[in-house]
Amino acid sequence: MIKVGIVGAGGYAGVNLLALLLRHPEVSVSWLVSEDAHNGKKISALFPHLTNICDLNCQTMADIGKLTKGTDVVFLALPHGIALEYVPAILAAGAKVVDLGADYRFDDEKTFEKWYSVTHQDKTVFKEAVFGLPELFRDKIKKTRLVGNPGCYPTASILGTAPLLANKLIDPASIMIDAKSGVSGAGRGLKLNTLYCERNDGVMAYSVTNHRHMGEIDHILCKVAKEPVGVTFVPHLIPQDRGILATIYAKITNDPPKAGQMTNEGIIKLYKDFYKGEDFVRIYPTPCTKNVRGTNYCDIGVEVNEEKGTVIVTSVIDNLIKGAAGQAVQNINLLFGWPETTGLQQIAIFP
Amino acid sequence: MIKVGIVGAGGYAGVNLLALLLRHPEVSVSWLVSEDAHNGKKISALFPHLTNICDLNCQTMADIGKLTKGTDVVFLALPHGIALEYVPAILAAGAKVVDLGADYRFDDEKTFEKWYSVTHQDKTVFKEAVFGLPELFRDKIKKTRLVGNPGCYPTASILGTAPLLANKLIDPASIMIDAKSGVSGAGRGLKLNTLYCERNDGVMAYSVTNHRHMGEIDHILCKVAKEPVGVTFVPHLIPQDRGILATIYAKITNDPPKAGQMTNEGIIKLYKDFYKGEDFVRIYPTPCTKNVRGTNYCDIGVEVNEEKGTVIVTSVIDNLIKGAAGQAVQNINLLFGWPETTGLQQIAIFP
Amino acid sequence: MIKVGIVGAGGYAGVNLLALLLRHPEVSVSWLVSEDAHNGKKISALFPHLTNICDLNCQTMADIGKLTKGTDVVFLALPHGIALEYVPAILAAGAKVVDLGADYRFDDEKTFEKWYSVTHQDKTVFKEAVFGLPELFRDKIKKTRLVGNPGCYPTASILGTAPLLANKLIDPASIMIDAKSGVSGAGRGLKLNTLYCERNDGVMAYSVTNHRHMGEIDHILCKVAKEPVGVTFVPHLIPQDRGILATIYAKITNDPPKAGQMTNEGIIKLYKDFYKGEDFVRIYPTPCTKNVRGTNYCDIGVEVNEEKGTVIVTSVIDNLIKGAAGQAVQNINLLFGWPETTGLQQIAIFP
Amino acid sequence: MIKVGIVGAGGYAGVNLLALLLRHPEVSVSWLVSEDAHNGKKISALFPHLTNICDLNCQTMADIGKLTKGTDVVFLALPHGIALEYVPAILAAGAKVVDLGADYRFDDEKTFEKWYSVTHQDKTVFKEAVFGLPELFRDKIKKTRLVGNPGCYPTASILGTAPLLANKLIDPASIMIDAKSGVSGAGRGLKLNTLYCERNDGVMAYSVTNHRHMGEIDHILCKVAKEPVGVTFVPHLIPQDRGILATIYAKITNDPPKAGQMTNEGIIKLYKDFYKGEDFVRIYPTPCTKNVRGTNYCDIGVEVNEEKGTVIVTSVIDNLIKGAAGQAVQNINLLFGWPETTGLQQIAIFP
Repeated sequence: MIKVGIVGAGGYAGVNLLALLLRHPEVSVSWLVSEDAHNGKKISALFPHLTNICDLNCQTMADIGKLTKGTDVVFLALPHGIALEYVPAILAAGAKVVDLGADYRFDDEKTFEKWYSVTHQDKTVFKEAVFGLPELFRDKIKKTRLVGNPGCYPTASILGTAPLLANKLIDPASIMIDAKSGVSGAGRGLKLNTLYCERNDGVMAYSVTNHRHMGEIDHILCKVAKEPVGVTFVPHLIPQDRGILATIYAKITNDPPKAGQMTNEGIIKLYKDFYKGEDFVRIYPTPCTKNVRGTNYCDIGVEVNEEKGTVIVTSVIDNLIKGAAGQAVQNINLLFGWPETTGLQQIAIFP
Repeated sequence: MIKVGIVGAGGYAGVNLLALLLRHPEVSVSWLVSEDAHNGKKISALFPHLTNICDLNCQTMADIGKLTKGTDVVFLALPHGIALEYVPAILAAGAKVVDLGADYRFDDEKTFEKWYSVTHQDKTVFKEAVFGLPELFRDKIKKTRLVGNPGCYPTASILGTAPLLANKLIDPASIMIDAKSGVSGAGRGLKLNTLYCERNDGVMAYSVTNHRHMGEIDHILCKVAKEPVGVTFVPHLIPQDRGILATIYAKITNDPPKAGQMTNEGIIKLYKDFYKGEDFVRIYPTPCTKNVRGTNYCDIGVEVNEEKGTVIVTSVIDNLIKGAAGQAVQNINLLFGWPETTGLQQIAIFP
Repeated sequence: MIKVGIVGAGGYAGVNLLALLLRHPEVSVSWLVSEDAHNGKKISALFPHLTNICDLNCQTMADIGKLTKGTDVVFLALPHGIALEYVPAILAAGAKVVDLGADYRFDDEKTFEKWYSVTHQDKTVFKEAVFGLPELFRDKIKKTRLVGNPGCYPTASILGTAPLLANKLIDPASIMIDAKSGVSGAGRGLKLNTLYCERNDGVMAYSVTNHRHMGEIDHILCKVAKEPVGVTFVPHLIPQDRGILATIYAKITNDPPKAGQMTNEGIIKLYKDFYKGEDFVRIYPTPCTKNVRGTNYCDIGVEVNEEKGTVIVTSVIDNLIKGAAGQAVQNINLLFGWPETTGLQQIAIFP
Repeated sequence: MIKVGIVGAGGYAGVNLLALLLRHPEVSVSWLVSEDAHNGKKISALFPHLTNICDLNCQTMADIGKLTKGTDVVFLALPHGIALEYVPAILAAGAKVVDLGADYRFDDEKTFEKWYSVTHQDKTVFKEAVFGLPELFRDKIKKTRLVGNPGCYPTASILGTAPLLANKLIDPASIMIDAKSGVSGAGRGLKLNTLYCERNDGVMAYSVTNHRHMGEIDHILCKVAKEPVGVTFVPHLIPQDRGILATIYAKITNDPPKAGQMTNEGIIKLYKDFYKGEDFVRIYPTPCTKNVRGTNYCDIGVEVNEEKGTVIVTSVIDNLIKGAAGQAVQNINLLFGWPETTGLQQIAIFP
């Protein structure tokens, strides 16, 4: 049993992570940190669904130095720009770190600073961080002590697009990703836009040309493609609490692909081959967010519109599990050499 | 006061049309036809929200010849392939026709037959039909007696795309339209896919490469662009009862557009100019389906991603009003020379 | 055309009132007041669904003296305890007042003060106020200049219960009212409890023993019954944006009711007789909030469980229309002698 | 590992049972039966969320004799009136039975026949059946081979009411239960009433005076109270897929209860004492369905309205888990002597 702590336990990602870790057979949750206003409150007072399950008290960031001692892994679920103030000290104290925020997702400071408008002050460990998408970077994750856990939109988008780019089947400048997200992605903070009455029956796009996850998607897909990739990414809010569906559109390249590859049968086989042996990727037609609700799966469907010369991928995840907490658990399973599905065998609640 | 009849009053489009016409100051609803199982039932028995408002009985298609006599306009809301059996006789009897189905949306039989897999048997009046999208074809509508009322997805998609194509600003082969629809678009029939439990929290794509509205969109956009247009169109079901959001992606053409045109300011001005004087098109950022709920508006937002060289349009309608019943009323307002907003001045119910 | 002003236009009740008044043929909306943070903003900036429909600027309560001059009716949609500071001056300036808040719903100061924990400082006009439920107090409303517009829960509850009490058919101490409300009843303010993610899939009771509307229901039902009435009232939040369903349970009195009265047929007839001639009350089995959405109707169903000796009433309204803005319009129709349905002939949007 | 089979796997209750059993450490699912139309289909074709998790084929009721051999427990999730044709043979073949339908919930044939309008033809084993509500009938369940798994509404209603009746604190004729259910309770069959568009934004009561679960609640509560109990029970459909909230109203008896018992503090203590040691009952204020989603918990809140002399209980469950599949698992845990929480330690997915 390893000892872990969670910073940001009062948010939606944090509490989902807590729930997964409470049922993880190799993990003991030692402490929780939340915002100052929660100091001393039981986590079950903030989240009554944890009544009789977890009665840890929330502590504050001021306690982090003391708390870190004897902790094996610290999970950070914080707004961007904060984790980087604390991570070097946590690592120095001997704990591993999984950062669910954006601070350690880029191995290029300038790109991070461009999208997040902060100076990345941590010059010491920044380069050690590994982008925690196991399906693409498993070997690196196993060897690191600092994981930058991917964003929710990037997880669905990158897993959906990677097989096409890795096989050079599409024009990398033609990729359009239309992502639909449940409202929980916006967090538990109080905002007009996330009120029930504003979102019910109300689908809309937001951050149409400048969502920060566009930078993350581009950054990682360039590595996959080994050439420049420029994705047009537009997120939308839909009236459900969790779930992301990314619909990915791209033009098939003029260079003729291998015979039969760009048919529905061929492309499905290519996706199944690419994700062969992956526990958390499933390939079948027109996946629905409902099928992955509460699970660590990324379900992918792919079809070719031969007349139009386009390929369309639909990729669904639970934004709080595969898009945050579940992937973080998958990453510590790698860090500690446990089977990758440990603590992640939930079946979607349907309906 | 003109006399009108509605065929298909037992469906969602039909009952919305009925509701609009009951409050239209120039119209008297004389009769209703629904499926045989509804024969003799009061419409308010099928739809209790009409209690004390309309107590007409449903009649059947077998009565259509008799009913048509003395009727000024017949509205047809039927599955495709049926209207074309009846329209020539209705016109011959002296009534005008607004067909809310697909049978009269194409002026090219082969295209219709390709997408709908039926032989278009009506050779007599087919060529008379006018595509009833007033913002683009107002003059022709005024002069016809047979309107093919546009589909819901095409209405949002075409109005969102037309200014770009008419101004030759985008590559017509690059257009990707990602449409999200409330469940009412699938009708009141009993289907597994439209059960509450299957759709709540469950966004998914469907008919990814072959939705019939893709043919309609291509067909009309070619007229607008005056060159071939091939749109990749993917519809999605989202958990709300009504509303469509079409997100339209296209590559800006290499030929340099006029100075400043492809900036956010420039493109917004272009859209406002294109729709100047239109009562039912509004231009503002990131429109939401909630803002048009129950109204005949099409609200459009447009932004340029200059780095990626793409333009993104979001276009929202109420699929049952501007996408069906409201547009049908707008069309008869044109047919009879009444102000175009007659009976269509509803304000969206918010929230 | 009379001139009206709305105080509290930035809230859900206020903006619904505005929408109704903008389409009312006898009314011109002269000015809007909202909270200070909205000062100088267009109302369509706060509510984009009003784009091109109303572009009045929001003013502040500091302007109320100036604004009131020349205004025929001032509508107040404010949290309790504020209206009573302003109403005497508004009346003195010659305007009539419809207060959508709670300050003028009680003709007994002590009862008001008990439930609202404020001292009712307005001693001058308090006694003039008439409870604005036209179906029960029409004659008084016609003669007043100060209407206390009923609360949303009381509207549904009182209209559902009145026929039973007026006819002495039930034990007044046995009444249990279980009310289910859409989230809009809680307003547009930012609260954890009204976030989309907290309410979706999440029905719950609140204010189980002390909701202020219980006081209002008791107060009015005592007048109807002409004897003490003590209702157990429990409100619930359900995942929809608008709509209230009040389910009312009561024990049939032991004294034998008139022959056949407490059968389903008898009780339905009694309700239909009680509300004979009412434009906005409809009686039919198991009404649904969807049937009154966006309308001023109160739809009521009533059944007798003969074995258990209980009567069960279900009463639905749109909390923002019949429960607030629509009823306010109904009241001014009475104040000015217009037909009671003027501006209130909306048909529910279905589905 | 015991071998189990599920009849009715193609329904919502059945598939939830399957999901729980697939993760139960002591159970192996050997076979599935669904309706004839599903014969030979993979269960994952009916429910794509089971892709790569369970690929058993559906068989039909015609195979039941053969399938039962070597099976330790057969679960039946069928419409009422069918199980009783098969259960005697299944028991005779040596398997235990948990019937999720209504056929074995009554130990009085006449009561069953009154509510279900069928003749109970199974005269052989009917009397053996035990009502499978472990919190009240644990000892009997441990000794039986035939469990009648409780209905969803009765589970929430009985657990919420039992402490009051067992302690003689309320008038048993005064109990009114207002239950709100998600739509999944109506099953996966195609009905107009369960379409997304009919239920979204549409709360309504149904079966106001004659829901069959009223008979079940009365029947069991009489045993608890050891005197006649007559509950007025009214179910409602609310727009969510799963979850039941039963709000229970009763008059406090005139006989003075023990000092302080009918205060909030006293009554909460009484409930906590009554359910002391129960793993699946939690007591806290105003529970929400969201807090039990996907879990076997029944969360209960209780408050006293001292002024009105009433007690109000709110009781929430997941209708498909504690109200069906989870309780069935809890019952086999008792049948086989495993810890009662085995396979039932899910934490609610929040939000």
